Amino acid sequence: MIKQLLLAPGPTPVPARVRAAMAKPVIHHRTPQFGEIFERVRGGLKELFATENDVLVLSSSGTGAMEASVVNCFAPGDEVLVVNGGKFGERWLKLADMYSLKPIELKVEWGAAVRVEQVEQAIAEHPDLRGILIQGSETSTTTCHPVEEIARLTRDRDILLAVDGITAVGVYELPMDEWGVDILVTGSQKAMMMPPGLAAIALSDRAWERSKSVCQPRFYFDLEKERAGQAKNSTAYTPAISLIYALDESLAMMREEGFPELYARHDRCARATRAGCEALGLRLLSPDSPSPAATGVFVPDGVDGKKLHGYLRDQMGVAFAGGQDQLKGKILRIAHIGYIDAFDTITAIAALEMALLHFGHDVQLGRGVGAAQEILMAALPSR
Amino acid sequence: MIKQLLLAPGPTPVPARVRAAMAKPVIHHRTPQFGEIFERVRGGLKELFATENDVLVLSSSGTGAMEASVVNCFAPGDEVLVVNGGKFGERWLKLADMYSLKPIELKVEWGAAVRVEQVEQAIAEHPDLRGILIQGSETSTTTCHPVEEIARLTRDRDILLAVDGITAVGVYELPMDEWGVDILVTGSQKAMMMPPGLAAIALSDRAWERSKSVCQPRFYFDLEKERAGQAKNSTAYTPAISLIYALDESLAMMREEGFPELYARHDRCARATRAGCEALGLRLLSPDSPSPAATGVFVPDGVDGKKLHGYLRDQMGVAFAGGQDQLKGKILRIAHIGYIDAFDTITAIAALEMALLHFGHDVQLGRGVGAAQEILMAALPSR
Repeated sequence: MIKQLLLAPGPTPVPARVRAAMAKPVIHHRTPQFGEIFERVRGGLKELFATENDVLVLSSSGTGAMEASVVNCFAPGDEVLVVNGGKFGERWLKLADMYSLKPIELKVEWGAAVRVEQVEQAIAEHPDLRGILIQGSETSTTTCHPVEEIARLTRDRDILLAVDGITAVGVYELPMDEWGVDILVTGSQKAMMMPPGLAAIALSDRAWERSKSVCQPRFYFDLEKERAGQAKNSTAYTPAISLIYALDESLAMMREEGFPELYARHDRCARATRAGCEALGLRLLSPDSPSPAATGVFVPDGVDGKKLHGYLRDQMGVAFAGGQDQLKGKILRIAHIGYIDAFDTITAIAALEMALLHFGHDVQLGRGVGAAQEILMAALPSR
Repeated sequence: MIKQLLLAPGPTPVPARVRAAMAKPVIHHRTPQFGEIFERVRGGLKELFATENDVLVLSSSGTGAMEASVVNCFAPGDEVLVVNGGKFGERWLKLADMYSLKPIELKVEWGAAVRVEQVEQAIAEHPDLRGILIQGSETSTTTCHPVEEIARLTRDRDILLAVDGITAVGVYELPMDEWGVDILVTGSQKAMMMPPGLAAIALSDRAWERSKSVCQPRFYFDLEKERAGQAKNSTAYTPAISLIYALDESLAMMREEGFPELYARHDRCARATRAGCEALGLRLLSPDSPSPAATGVFVPDGVDGKKLHGYLRDQMGVAFAGGQDQLKGKILRIAHIGYIDAFDTITAIAALEMALLHFGHDVQLGRGVGAAQEILMAALPSR
């Protein structure tokens, strides 16, 4: 008997409560009964995004919502700055290319965050800039970009700030309205503790205004059409009803825990993991601007990263994510988001120690765990 | 205690087995474990579509797959014939307009099927025609179009036949390769007995060939990219994993029943419903080319259709679909697809009789039911 523990930065583990909600009989989506659920979901999402604007639900992966951002808010020829510091920065770039925007690429080393001055300079050099496309947390490199600081640069200019918050929304505090983010996107299989299949997107007033003048073909991802439908607690097209049940339940769980507590938990598990890895002498992928969503750690020399990852998953039941593209086989990514707690984090470090030892790496068992425990202890009630 | 019976042509009732499958823990989609499930699903879908080509799974509603048909196989300026006999024919038209095709509208009265000669004539009049967009079953009018006959006209010409099979695939026999359909699309919440949230699409060899030369922006719905991923039992973007579990289970159920038996069941329930309605003196929406997916029946004069529909759903627990757009309040649509059997059909007629009587319409209770029973009897084992 090996219990399976999913510790990837998406999909993340789905609590039994949420899975049970999905098993409920399907009701028709054009009924007052569904409308009641959907209204509650819409309220919860506004709280999660910290916005007064509508948060629209799409039945797609997060990539669908990224596409929706581009086709609704940017026109062919629009100059946009794309912060490309990983696989998902690249995705913005591909989307911008596909829809004939004029992307200016700001390339950032994988594992590093963009510096605010770089963005400032790019803005100065490109007076016609219409938008900035960035990740709140770049999942492929487990790195956070300084969204709050960048929003300070964009909010007083006619530059829309589009943030892929797929591993940021619900992960750390990212109050959309307060910071002045114009487009914020997330996916269901991350902090929301749900299976994949839903995305959510919110636009600022000025992003809605901009969308009126944008002429791009769009149909399934037509946000104006969705907004009209969702204002009446319905959707433009048939929604993934069972996943809406799941979202309703997961939003309830997030509210019960409290958003500040939830953000603190992610941060604590992330710090504990980094401390554990460092105590084992492992090198972190993103030491300077680490994401609380996941910790990327380099596989030590002499250990086959692909085998290590497979062994952990198939023989030990602990499924981390590996590296993507140029980092394939070189790193492990250990997730902290969603339904992951202190002892899952300890399991992660313990499993990593044991697997490294198995593959002949010199490890003192318990050393990384001890360092993680030090940090996790702090959250225990004082008596 | 009122049991809830969903009898709309989508979403349709989801069997407990399928719902239980969705409640399984989520595994990562980039693993051999997921690949094994997905390979089985791909095999099942090829059987369902009766094609040797790949059937691609998209995490979207069926509309997403309709959009995928247009953006992958037709270029701006392409002349396409759109058979518009209902709300979903209109959707093809809107999609064709949105992506700058040159649609030629063949308008068909709601409730009627297009005649093959009309299509033949349109082909003769438009020698540059690149495609025909049609519904296998027009859900809004409960009408079947003659797809097999139209395919005979297109398959030897350079005209791609795109069939919205959202309430046709798995509803009646629609062997894609044998008939020569070029693009076939379906959605999960219909005959597949699943919640909404997945769509499936298959292309013929020549449709794939055509797609290579089609220059339309597409990203989330890029089928070539999906094909490359799915050939390796993966997907281009994160799939709705729990819904893939459901699909795996529902395909198993369909195979257990057998496709011929399943098609016969839909047909039998549809005939029983039509007989029941006619015995009650009700007028059918589509008397000449009725779909086995659902039966549209006019609400008799003097009865408020909206109230009737709401009363059936909220007071009797029987949720039919109402009419859409111009048929709103004028018809009920009674579904036969998916997890619906003989006694659900009898319940439908019995509930309709009782609700009509409640609203003062002259009904002889049991008369419609008896007519339905006559037909359903035929399927009982002989001893």
